[in-house]
Amino acid sequence: MIRLSAFQMQTAGPDAAANLAHIETAAREAARAGATLLVSPELGITSYGGGEDILALAEPADGEIVDRLGRIARETGVALVGGFAEKDGDAVYNSAVYTDGSGKPSVYRKSHLYGDYERNLFMPEKPSTCLFSHRGMTLGMLICYDVEFPENVRRLALAGAEMILVPTATPKGASGTFIAEKMIPVRAFENQIFIAYVNNIGRDGDFDYAGRSIIAAPDGTALATAGLSEQLLTVDIEPQLYARSRSENTYLRDL
Amino acid sequence: MIRLSAFQMQTAGPDAAANLAHIETAAREAARAGATLLVSPELGITSYGGGEDILALAEPADGEIVDRLGRIARETGVALVGGFAEKDGDAVYNSAVYTDGSGKPSVYRKSHLYGDYERNLFMPEKPSTCLFSHRGMTLGMLICYDVEFPENVRRLALAGAEMILVPTATPKGASGTFIAEKMIPVRAFENQIFIAYVNNIGRDGDFDYAGRSIIAAPDGTALATAGLSEQLLTVDIEPQLYARSRSENTYLRDL
Repeated sequence: MIRLSAFQMQTAGPDAAANLAHIETAAREAARAGATLLVSPELGITSYGGGEDILALAEPADGEIVDRLGRIARETGVALVGGFAEKDGDAVYNSAVYTDGSGKPSVYRKSHLYGDYERNLFMPEKPSTCLFSHRGMTLGMLICYDVEFPENVRRLALAGAEMILVPTATPKGASGTFIAEKMIPVRAFENQIFIAYVNNIGRDGDFDYAGRSIIAAPDGTALATAGLSEQLLTVDIEPQLYARSRSENTYLRDL
Repeated sequence: MIRLSAFQMQTAGPDAAANLAHIETAAREAARAGATLLVSPELGITSYGGGEDILALAEPADGEIVDRLGRIARETGVALVGGFAEKDGDAVYNSAVYTDGSGKPSVYRKSHLYGDYERNLFMPEKPSTCLFSHRGMTLGMLICYDVEFPENVRRLALAGAEMILVPTATPKGASGTFIAEKMIPVRAFENQIFIAYVNNIGRDGDFDYAGRSIIAAPDGTALATAGLSEQLLTVDIEPQLYARSRSENTYLRDL
């Protein structure tokens, strides 16, 4: 069992120190609620809407941003998934990192960039499978648009992911609502896994986010959903409760 | 534009003559409504729930069942998609045929059989792509469990299908409701195509069907949904209305 907190976060814009302090506050609140893992939104540390300013904040995976997340994780006992602009040589990736403050952090780079805004800022990575273990469960990460492609979710599920953590920056609109309310539950159901889809909230540069973060279970039900304000959702992830769903919906075996 | 009728049908059990007569009546009603295409449910001609009795009704694709469908299509001006047990040598397939009464019928064989009941009766076919043209649109077919695998829908969409017709026999229960209400709209949205998911209704052998047939549009909206009774849904399929959705949700291009 994992007690998971999803932080639907309003960032301070392209201000890494302020955003990291905000994540630290959320991690302390998650710790008080008994969570061992906190997931924050896409680019939540460097901001999604900051445009070129994001690039100036980009750091390597062994840089200060990930160091600071590791320190927060050690101090609070809450492992963190955080989104940041990752510098690697001349390239900058839209990345998410998992760290529990000990051992090597796991870094996932977004493969499917959405629209000109992202493509002008970031390099796409080839679709990749980055799995790690947390409290006995095998977890993976995707970022925003990645999860809208069933191929990406399937790849991770076939590799053994029992839950996929998805930092996102989905704007308001019919598509954003559809993705949160229908597509994410379907991605969970069609692979019989958990998905935590954690959005930004509020205004940020030219963006106004849909909120509606959701944690979906293998049977397609929502364990928790957020509305249109900053919010910390905390839920228990209990795979053993979904044995019947897995026995009736044998997609991975029948594929 | 295609005016399409979806026939959520209560079969007479394993009685091909009775089921064909029932489909003929529906085709005449569809013609009066101005439709040019009528889709009927999985195995609607030989019945889904008839067990071993279905095998005795199996016919080749150039046999009397498809001949009769062709005659109905010619007489009514309504092309038909019908589900039947298809005999090919010693093998029997769970098949769907499209015929407009002229030219060679298009036959699709189910690739993903669900559970022991189907696997004891039918041979699975390798996943295949059978496309045909109707009134200027490119259409494809899948059957029931096939559409629950995103890989099958994607394959047809990448091959050019603008609409997929899905005869089904989905039983009542939480999964059946989830598939009709969430998964089918997501399959349409993630490929920016139309999907007509046409279920059986009523009791049939050991089965009690979920109904809830749905015709979903590229933007994930439902053009029509059926309830829990026999019903003929007639809708206009107008691809040009979804240009904005296709330009915002460029999954096939970005894959």
